[in-house]
Amino acid sequence: MSLNEFSLIEKYFAHFGQGESIVKGVGDDAAILDIPKGNQLVTSVDTLVSGVHFPQDAEAGQIARRALRVNLSDLAAMGAKPLGFTLALTIPGIKEDWLSAFSAALAEDALTFNCPLIGGDTTAGLLTITLSVFGTVPDGQALLRSGAQHGDHIYVTGHLGDAAAALSLLKASDIDEPKNQLRTGREYLLNRFYQPTPRLPAGEKLRSLASAALDVSDGLLADLGHITRQSGVGAQINVHRLPLSETLKEFKDQQQAIQWALTGGDDYELCFTVPAKKNAIVEAMISLGELNATEIGRIIEGNKIRCLGADGEMLVFDEAGYQHF
Amino acid sequence: MSLNEFSLIEKYFAHFGQGESIVKGVGDDAAILDIPKGNQLVTSVDTLVSGVHFPQDAEAGQIARRALRVNLSDLAAMGAKPLGFTLALTIPGIKEDWLSAFSAALAEDALTFNCPLIGGDTTAGLLTITLSVFGTVPDGQALLRSGAQHGDHIYVTGHLGDAAAALSLLKASDIDEPKNQLRTGREYLLNRFYQPTPRLPAGEKLRSLASAALDVSDGLLADLGHITRQSGVGAQINVHRLPLSETLKEFKDQQQAIQWALTGGDDYELCFTVPAKKNAIVEAMISLGELNATEIGRIIEGNKIRCLGADGEMLVFDEAGYQHF
Repeated sequence: MSLNEFSLIEKYFAHFGQGESIVKGVGDDAAILDIPKGNQLVTSVDTLVSGVHFPQDAEAGQIARRALRVNLSDLAAMGAKPLGFTLALTIPGIKEDWLSAFSAALAEDALTFNCPLIGGDTTAGLLTITLSVFGTVPDGQALLRSGAQHGDHIYVTGHLGDAAAALSLLKASDIDEPKNQLRTGREYLLNRFYQPTPRLPAGEKLRSLASAALDVSDGLLADLGHITRQSGVGAQINVHRLPLSETLKEFKDQQQAIQWALTGGDDYELCFTVPAKKNAIVEAMISLGELNATEIGRIIEGNKIRCLGADGEMLVFDEAGYQHF
Repeated sequence: MSLNEFSLIEKYFAHFGQGESIVKGVGDDAAILDIPKGNQLVTSVDTLVSGVHFPQDAEAGQIARRALRVNLSDLAAMGAKPLGFTLALTIPGIKEDWLSAFSAALAEDALTFNCPLIGGDTTAGLLTITLSVFGTVPDGQALLRSGAQHGDHIYVTGHLGDAAAALSLLKASDIDEPKNQLRTGREYLLNRFYQPTPRLPAGEKLRSLASAALDVSDGLLADLGHITRQSGVGAQINVHRLPLSETLKEFKDQQQAIQWALTGGDDYELCFTVPAKKNAIVEAMISLGELNATEIGRIIEGNKIRCLGADGEMLVFDEAGYQHF
């Protein structure tokens, strides 16, 4: 195959790089972006390595969607609005089918989330995808990890534990999988892993309401630990309040589901804290269907995260969450 | 080794992330940057893969410097001023010595070029480094590839061909290397490969003067080809005017040196074009030592790049330059 780097980017990736803030996208030494007045730039980078962050036999489209969505989730966690992204793609060689599927899925998601491609680099090596996303947030309104205070209510969006259940399916370690499990349930779980939904609308709505926020990528306990450490507080989680999907509840016993919800990563839901005086607004938004979130506990004094069962008994879980190394 | 991802970034990389525009650096879901009023954001991404972009036995510090400098060169080519960078580091495992050397060199260069680290990601896999650099340029003043016009003068900064000579040393294919070659000459060439100097001051000075610019990463002919294609013009290079370092001239015969200067990549000098009416300014800057650049030819009509020898004879070179695939 005689495709070179220039034509590779032009052929597969240059066509989905339109956006009002994109002064110059793919095709020069660097991209040029206009940052709207009164806004700050928000940027995050994530690398996905084949065999580490997704199975080696994952489909090109699945990898593309996961790569972009995982990064967009970081923007959501800051309350930022997407502006564009860059793609650094390392591939073993040029397979037209793979590249077509990868770029088609990426282009579709770029459109869905209004986040055009603004630049990239392709190199030869083991399959590794590094995406950098760019977003904007009104000056000083970004959601940080460091603002939680004693008495704040702790929430998570959507459901937790689905992605960990999907990983157990992908690792095929679950030979005791229920025989009557529906195919749709399996698909739902795998989609939750491969196509997490970046909670961008929720992030934007929470800008003026949440005292702290982040996305759950390494597991609730591990990630909430970032909020408690950076805010200098403790937290109490009521595990019976953890939002579990119907599929997860059918898939496994409650104890395993709760374990996954607390320590499994990859759900990319937002975990956020709300000061008591603003809590009624958040509750009203939830009641009106403006926000899909569940209160799971409270910020407390100290520096520990306590897990309480339905009867208020203390539970012990491994806080480590997912570790790359 | 029980270091996890969080402490890895904190221990080795979080300490060199200060800068006046950095509202939030390493340690949250994303970084937050202030873009000074009247400026646009300029961003570029480059991946370096072990065994492809640098030898597998390259030292950690060499890799770090090359990674940052290669990226900063893209900012220079746009006339942009550095603001900060993100690092996505994929490493086979945690070796304290390697990480210390890598982060020390990176921190030193970050300081030298006033470009602090603002965020990052570490993953497990084959050694791959993806850097994204961020810079600013006054609104509308970025140097693009598309502005060259018939009659413009073509310049390059510094010297060409040194990095290709260094690569020939690294590949150890030069068993006929002159025996009397000085060790300092070898070091000079290797430094030109591992520690290219991003021409940031030149890029900023050229904002109001150059009609087109880029950095020479894939070889002069290949890269000048981007300017001619995107500007819809041709070019004529007088090969006897190509700026060759004294070391390169001593290292090899003139024909090989010129071949490297035309088609070897990795020099990271700027190639830029200047309209006739502004050429006296550029010449004056060069005379006064304000700009280190050499005129090497002219933009002509058509769409071809012609190489002329000392007596005006047409020469033929491979235009392909360096190709990753």
